[in-house]
Amino acid sequence: MSPKITTELLKQLRQVMKNPRYVQEPVQAYIVPSGDAHQSEYIAPCDCRRAFISGFDGSAGTAIVTEQHAAMWTDGRYFLQAAHQMDSNWTLMKMGLKDTPTQEDWLVSILPEGSKVGVDPFIIPADQWKRMSKALRSAGHDLVPVKENLINTIWTDCPQRPCKPLITLDLSYTGVSWRDKIVALRSKMAERKVMWFVVTALDEVAWLFNLRGSDVEYNPVFFAYAIIGMNTIRLFIDGDRMMDPAVREHLQLDSTLEPEFKIQVMPYGSILSELQAVGAGLSPKEKVWLSDKASYALTEAIPKAYRYLTPYTPICIAKAVKNAAETEGMRRAHIKDAVALCELFNWLEKEVPKGTVTEIVAADKAEEFRSQQKDFVELSFATISSTGPNGAIIHYKPVPETNRTLSVNEIYLLDSGAQYKDGTTDVTRTMHFGTPSAYEKECFTYVLKGHIAVSAAIFPNGTKGHLLDSFARSALWDCGLDYLHGTGHGVGSFLNVHEGPCGISYKTFADEPLEAGMIVSDEPGYYEDGSFGIRIENVVLVIPAETKYNFKNRGSLTFEPLTLVPIQTKMIDVNLLTEKECNWVNEYHQKCREVVGAELERQGRHEALRWLLRETEPVARVQ
Amino acid sequence: MSPKITTELLKQLRQVMKNPRYVQEPVQAYIVPSGDAHQSEYIAPCDCRRAFISGFDGSAGTAIVTEQHAAMWTDGRYFLQAAHQMDSNWTLMKMGLKDTPTQEDWLVSILPEGSKVGVDPFIIPADQWKRMSKALRSAGHDLVPVKENLINTIWTDCPQRPCKPLITLDLSYTGVSWRDKIVALRSKMAERKVMWFVVTALDEVAWLFNLRGSDVEYNPVFFAYAIIGMNTIRLFIDGDRMMDPAVREHLQLDSTLEPEFKIQVMPYGSILSELQAVGAGLSPKEKVWLSDKASYALTEAIPKAYRYLTPYTPICIAKAVKNAAETEGMRRAHIKDAVALCELFNWLEKEVPKGTVTEIVAADKAEEFRSQQKDFVELSFATISSTGPNGAIIHYKPVPETNRTLSVNEIYLLDSGAQYKDGTTDVTRTMHFGTPSAYEKECFTYVLKGHIAVSAAIFPNGTKGHLLDSFARSALWDCGLDYLHGTGHGVGSFLNVHEGPCGISYKTFADEPLEAGMIVSDEPGYYEDGSFGIRIENVVLVIPAETKYNFKNRGSLTFEPLTLVPIQTKMIDVNLLTEKECNWVNEYHQKCREVVGAELERQGRHEALRWLLRETEPVARVQ
Repeated sequence: MSPKITTELLKQLRQVMKNPRYVQEPVQAYIVPSGDAHQSEYIAPCDCRRAFISGFDGSAGTAIVTEQHAAMWTDGRYFLQAAHQMDSNWTLMKMGLKDTPTQEDWLVSILPEGSKVGVDPFIIPADQWKRMSKALRSAGHDLVPVKENLINTIWTDCPQRPCKPLITLDLSYTGVSWRDKIVALRSKMAERKVMWFVVTALDEVAWLFNLRGSDVEYNPVFFAYAIIGMNTIRLFIDGDRMMDPAVREHLQLDSTLEPEFKIQVMPYGSILSELQAVGAGLSPKEKVWLSDKASYALTEAIPKAYRYLTPYTPICIAKAVKNAAETEGMRRAHIKDAVALCELFNWLEKEVPKGTVTEIVAADKAEEFRSQQKDFVELSFATISSTGPNGAIIHYKPVPETNRTLSVNEIYLLDSGAQYKDGTTDVTRTMHFGTPSAYEKECFTYVLKGHIAVSAAIFPNGTKGHLLDSFARSALWDCGLDYLHGTGHGVGSFLNVHEGPCGISYKTFADEPLEAGMIVSDEPGYYEDGSFGIRIENVVLVIPAETKYNFKNRGSLTFEPLTLVPIQTKMIDVNLLTEKECNWVNEYHQKCREVVGAELERQGRHEALRWLLRETEPVARVQ
Repeated sequence: MSPKITTELLKQLRQVMKNPRYVQEPVQAYIVPSGDAHQSEYIAPCDCRRAFISGFDGSAGTAIVTEQHAAMWTDGRYFLQAAHQMDSNWTLMKMGLKDTPTQEDWLVSILPEGSKVGVDPFIIPADQWKRMSKALRSAGHDLVPVKENLINTIWTDCPQRPCKPLITLDLSYTGVSWRDKIVALRSKMAERKVMWFVVTALDEVAWLFNLRGSDVEYNPVFFAYAIIGMNTIRLFIDGDRMMDPAVREHLQLDSTLEPEFKIQVMPYGSILSELQAVGAGLSPKEKVWLSDKASYALTEAIPKAYRYLTPYTPICIAKAVKNAAETEGMRRAHIKDAVALCELFNWLEKEVPKGTVTEIVAADKAEEFRSQQKDFVELSFATISSTGPNGAIIHYKPVPETNRTLSVNEIYLLDSGAQYKDGTTDVTRTMHFGTPSAYEKECFTYVLKGHIAVSAAIFPNGTKGHLLDSFARSALWDCGLDYLHGTGHGVGSFLNVHEGPCGISYKTFADEPLEAGMIVSDEPGYYEDGSFGIRIENVVLVIPAETKYNFKNRGSLTFEPLTLVPIQTKMIDVNLLTEKECNWVNEYHQKCREVVGAELERQGRHEALRWLLRETEPVARVQ
């Protein structure tokens, strides 16, 4: 991976930062956030402005360019990748390390007195605008909205915004009709006494209307906004997708409906003017509900006194708690996914010793096996297929320049997942196709102990996920080891592989309490720069737990693994496990055998079935 | 404990809330916070306004009185106590429970449109003012400062503010002179480019000047403020305490000193006008550093653009990391404290079966034994001496109406501590003087497992204490049990028994990372309303840990127990312990034997020594 040469681009950007055609007054710094106008994590090629200007294309990062400097903030997952992809024009700001300044502090430390800092108001979330604006103002600078995106002015071959056909999901997948979702939303609105709700996140629009799209790779969403009133529904969406008879039928666009369920379809680009019109027509006490992560541009459309901002929207919270149809769908999707991975690992076991399997070949093969499964739509994120030192690059994606050949001498880490019409998967397994060293086994076993500690944890109803994070690290900490990423994220139901409002992380303090029906990942790891990476990830469902006692009648919760793919026992130093942990492994593997074994049998995949049976032999501690 | 009848008082308060003599406009609600003008947790009798108006005298709580309602917010430690102490005029708001509204939300839900909410600006911390003011304003109400404290206007027999003599501490106790502390503070000020630092917390004034007082029971502090400039030191303190030759000598008030170390002594009451004068004389870029918990009144004295507010002051952080002299002092104090408790428990073992020992008698006896130890000053908090159901009242203090007799049939919980000139102690032991039931032993053992999980935890440098909280709960959670308080608090060095900026709690997210030299408590518990309470508390010192590996060269930390008092093995169901936990208990008891045994021997306390030896016999699991 050679870095992108950005000298010329930065020169051009610094010119437009002073060009009166684009800015009212010159800006001394320009912020290029990661997201799009919907604050999406995964973005369409036309929105990859930060990658365009810097070369760094990880999923999280913020670039700031000043007259003298260019700096990139990203987190522990991406330190190595960003260092590889950026040229010497860029300074890497390692978030989470003690000595790394915040963006605000850095700006204050280097800007000349009374500077203007520009940003696209459609791209920056309102909460970030507020924080940054305040910090800059208190140091005598100004954060200013720059209407025209300055990256777009220098990005001559910027691709078009995608506008692909939609998929309609019936009740067997969603469990609840879009009409009932609107009814529930309006009741939440009535509870909070708000008259309008603005849906800005792409996955929230998709979930609300039981529609899916493919405008953004890996995330089955489509570019749209919605404004829900107590009696009106406005959907802002472009293209001829609304001409599709299946979509018209699904949304009942041509039926005679009660007026409060009649959807008005409007152009995507008209959201701002429509919202401004809503804002201008508000009577006193009529509030408009927005996520505090909605863009500054949309938030500003509503006069401050009329805004009702929350960190998580009622849609975000409702979407996180999966109903029976969604949970069953997720189970089916994970069984199919396990079948594909059993095929893959069986194939790798035979092929790796031949020395012909590269990281890219293995990733493609994983996709091939997944695509053979029913209702497969696409991958849920870029496959992390990494061997040896590449495994230590936490969100690595193999490209021809970095593509290593799998061998019997190196650890192989595969973090991959798919979108099926019935659910979203995300699984990481770490394998050795030869003989792992004692040290590799030791590290793997600590990670496994952390994985089990979370997966088997029992905790009271109302517990927030971040309180479980240390369980995943305890075994590593005991030996002076750790990993620089969170332990888990929410997972959508045939939706985004990362979703709020719950998660398991030492840094997420704004997470909502875990509830039965929520689905998160459990993925501790251990990484040695230049040597190897280990991660063990299951997607797990929050379920009620039976306990001996029941303090204050609160009830308890635990996790049920939805992912059912063998954990390589060859990598386990069984004597480092407690008896309880050993039993967990054996019971988990027994379930893989029963559930995935039956499906392999049904699909006539006998060789993969034999692999599964071999890999799920019980382990025992030597006393 | 019968509740305080507050009908008449509330009537009077509601009258002054409308009386133009005290309020510019009538206030529809009046907030009575817990603290004093220094946001102290423990307060002098003259500052116990919330207890005066409500009857509830726990250490934490906020009362709000409106025309129709009177409500009290407090946390899980005090639910039972508050319910017992308040009459039916009051609604108890149980903080931390899901359905309990915040003060702001409650006010918004009950206030008539356009209400004024009054509060004493000297009592409310600036950060709370800001949050509440914003929430009220966005709902159309106003938070207004009421200069005269309205409780004081109806509190006819309010006691005088205390003004007791000071104690000077020499280098053998403090390790660092006050001059060197000033130098270090000024260097922190220079780092942050601030010209002035305002010391508002009583323990910070005491620590900075190496002085102690006794104006507040249990906390060896005195009423004072200080303003530290780069070249000036102003100490605001009342009474003739500055006439004491020892104090004058200690502060070098009569010496010819470099001007930057010359202390100007000023009246306590002149802080506001002096600070306003400082504020008025600032040049651009001259900032004033205050805690964001300083009172609204003092914070407002500095124009907004000149304020530099932080959640923790540099004094708070420096004070938390104990130096060698302080650590050694704390060790000595804890050995003496253990001697006193060995005497007490030996005495209780003999006396309890006679049926003559009440909770108050036991508490007094504990104080008697402690007062026999060298450098004993006073208790560090009100002794919690509780048996049977009283043990479930988490911050119970025995009074004649509730005083139970200890018996061989009930669990006894003693949470007590002392101030010695060389250190502060805080220890909880839970004992049974007869035969505990299997269930009592089971619960005790889960609490012990939690205590050990924290005490023996190894974690990376830079870890915040709240990340360890779940370790203390895990064994309880597994059985559906929990406790409704944090796991640990910072402990001062001959200072406040509760101090910031570190702690171990599920709710403390603003804690500073743990560092070697910090001292915290480790005190999980389990409480059954109406039956019993269990808590096991040691004070522990953060020390470097040796680990097999050292990820990113970060280094690891762990805890060393300073408290060395036997944990009653009779209460332990040894077979619920892991081998590692069992070893921890035996090694801990071995250390108690060696260290405290030697001191008991030295003090000729042979009977207590025999008790110690009996109580520290090793335990073993039956396989």
